[in-house]
Amino acid sequence: LRRNATSNLKKALGKIHPADIAHLLRYFDVHEQKTLLELTPDLQRVADVLAELEPDSWPQIAELLDRDYLISIIHEMADDDSAVFIRSLPDDLGEQILIALHDDQSDDVEYLLGYEEETAGSIMSTDVFFLNQDISVRHAIEALQDSEDYEMVFYVYVTDEHNHLVGVLSLRQLLTVPPTTKLADIMSTNVMRVRSDMDQEEVAQMVAKYNLLAIPVVDDQGKLLGLITVDDVIDVMRDEATEDILRMAGTSEEELLLGYKSFQIARLRLPWLLTTLVGGVVTGTLMWYYRATLEQVIMLISFIPVITGMGGNVGGQTSTILVRGFATGRIDFSMIRQVFLKELRVGLIMGLVCGIVIAGVASIWHQNLYLGLVVGVAMVTAITVAACMGVVVTAFFKKIGVDPAIASSPFVQTVNDITGIMIYFSTATLFLPYLT
Amino acid sequence: LRRNATSNLKKALGKIHPADIAHLLRYFDVHEQKTLLELTPDLQRVADVLAELEPDSWPQIAELLDRDYLISIIHEMADDDSAVFIRSLPDDLGEQILIALHDDQSDDVEYLLGYEEETAGSIMSTDVFFLNQDISVRHAIEALQDSEDYEMVFYVYVTDEHNHLVGVLSLRQLLTVPPTTKLADIMSTNVMRVRSDMDQEEVAQMVAKYNLLAIPVVDDQGKLLGLITVDDVIDVMRDEATEDILRMAGTSEEELLLGYKSFQIARLRLPWLLTTLVGGVVTGTLMWYYRATLEQVIMLISFIPVITGMGGNVGGQTSTILVRGFATGRIDFSMIRQVFLKELRVGLIMGLVCGIVIAGVASIWHQNLYLGLVVGVAMVTAITVAACMGVVVTAFFKKIGVDPAIASSPFVQTVNDITGIMIYFSTATLFLPYLT
Repeated sequence: LRRNATSNLKKALGKIHPADIAHLLRYFDVHEQKTLLELTPDLQRVADVLAELEPDSWPQIAELLDRDYLISIIHEMADDDSAVFIRSLPDDLGEQILIALHDDQSDDVEYLLGYEEETAGSIMSTDVFFLNQDISVRHAIEALQDSEDYEMVFYVYVTDEHNHLVGVLSLRQLLTVPPTTKLADIMSTNVMRVRSDMDQEEVAQMVAKYNLLAIPVVDDQGKLLGLITVDDVIDVMRDEATEDILRMAGTSEEELLLGYKSFQIARLRLPWLLTTLVGGVVTGTLMWYYRATLEQVIMLISFIPVITGMGGNVGGQTSTILVRGFATGRIDFSMIRQVFLKELRVGLIMGLVCGIVIAGVASIWHQNLYLGLVVGVAMVTAITVAACMGVVVTAFFKKIGVDPAIASSPFVQTVNDITGIMIYFSTATLFLPYLT
Repeated sequence: LRRNATSNLKKALGKIHPADIAHLLRYFDVHEQKTLLELTPDLQRVADVLAELEPDSWPQIAELLDRDYLISIIHEMADDDSAVFIRSLPDDLGEQILIALHDDQSDDVEYLLGYEEETAGSIMSTDVFFLNQDISVRHAIEALQDSEDYEMVFYVYVTDEHNHLVGVLSLRQLLTVPPTTKLADIMSTNVMRVRSDMDQEEVAQMVAKYNLLAIPVVDDQGKLLGLITVDDVIDVMRDEATEDILRMAGTSEEELLLGYKSFQIARLRLPWLLTTLVGGVVTGTLMWYYRATLEQVIMLISFIPVITGMGGNVGGQTSTILVRGFATGRIDFSMIRQVFLKELRVGLIMGLVCGIVIAGVASIWHQNLYLGLVVGVAMVTAITVAACMGVVVTAFFKKIGVDPAIASSPFVQTVNDITGIMIYFSTATLFLPYLT
């Protein structure tokens, strides 16, 4: 790659879509990425590529690039992109860049940096195209013709003299009325909007629910601050889904940004594993406590894995339904009682089916009807309890403000391992006289 | 609800956003939903609400509604919505509706029904606004003014005389050039497009990657067939994420449509549970096979849960990373070797950490260094194998064309339970002389 073919490479980099270049760059290490970025013609293009790269590769690349070059790239970014970019950098580097940017841009960026992460304010663009309600359609069209600086103008937002958002127009509406009409007379006054401190996930849900292309962001007085476009919402939705999925598996979305760095990835996953480890040792202690029962009836060991495995699985299913329900807005706390009762019923039904199956297996395998009874009863109880635990643990995490996605894997599973073993061995101990 | 307050209710239903009505309807049973739909004024509104309802509640509601009323509602739907709606109905009811629809609409709908489910063709709208490349900007604007029937006109697609897609224009471009300019002279000829048989998940990835608002759908000759807008893409992305999450937990997205119907939900989840059950019995058989070892060294039982639990967890993490990577396009088969090696390294590192911890716990607890050694070695091996299995099983499912999301939970976990127990007890048997 680093040979003479650079001029061809330059040409290619000038033609490929920035998103594709960003995709290609993933296959290279950070030094090669830097070289390729520098080879890419046109600063606007480089800015687009950089914005499309994985956010966690930004700090490394930023450190490698020449400072002035970096600043001229950031200069070409939309202000929401550059705010997100600068936010990702180490504080001192971010400071330096803010100082070096031209005054007007750095004001906008600093302003965006003032919003808390993952709020509407932090993902909005301040490049929103809006007009005063008193101007005419003719003037509006003229303004539109000069509006090259704005991203994706599809709606025209209309404000009053104090910048309060009062209406919205589609471009087509402008074309279908006489040029002297005032905007206030044709605008629709029913404008969906979000407050700047709304959580980005809620914003995404709203845009998805109402099939919007963009949603304006206002402050608590209703003043227009910025715009969130649907492409940002898509990114938010995908990231939130990925976040949930990875957290449910006991790792974190940061992992995706570490590439092939095994040590860092291991460090990220280990806390969850150590939780499971502690849980496993607790379960083991319980089994040790019941060892007398086990020594007397060694055939009990054959059903330990199935009892703990099923409990973990059922708890995981229930917890997942809740986690996803909370995330998509399908479930809220007002329904939690109904959901609990449903999961209780579902758990009981599944427990009965699995209990009967495993009771049959146990009776036939070890030629012992009482063993079948013990295993069957334990299975029904363990599965039903697991289903309830799935709801209780997940809802509890949600209630205390911890992401319920992290509840579903290690916690629910560990809780259900422990209850499963307790149920199994206490049932067995109860029936001990019949088993020996 | 069914009292006299109907006229107020009617008024309310006439004002609330259709998406909100659909959301509210979830709290009612299907008969109440039917009543509320009938109370909603304006057929267009009813059509919007129906389109926003959960697809799996459609057949029931459709059966309940008066046939003529139903047909007049479908009449108001966009053709892509009505195709999806009719597709969800039982075949004979769908047929009847198709026959009863006016000729032109039923042609469009039947045409859309011809595409396979989950392809670009099945989710596109045929209401695409396009113009011939030879017409002038003035005529284009006139055409636009009459374009009320089309959903979301933001781009103007340009075709040649054989309806091949040859270019695209933004509305703003039309406003900024002299009215006599031909479209062919100002259009951009580099138009992103998808083939009608492309998988909807790929379409969604493409729209997300290139930040598009809409993407035209063409046939294999490049003829323009329809348009997929970003709001449909958002639905696809959310559904696919939910599908993956639920499948990973061993249930299915259909569950969400069953509401509180416990028996049907249980029936949906049971197959996965029974897989785990079989796996658990196999693991149990293995333990039974090693019972002599266990009877001699009863303290071995204290580490069974931790060995199987950790293996299942690590395998789940690895598998999840792959499942999500495949889904978002971040991982493909060309990287599978690298991913495997990475997971092997990560597994080894995590295995060593957990192995040392558990070896310490075991040695101190049972005052037996050899037990510590056995448990530690088994843990390192089990975790490393589990990490590799997570990659192998998931990639295998993907390769043979089965959704890898269903691999991660029951299969990976069962496989790792089995290998974990085998590793643990064979190590223990090997060291048996030192343990007793």
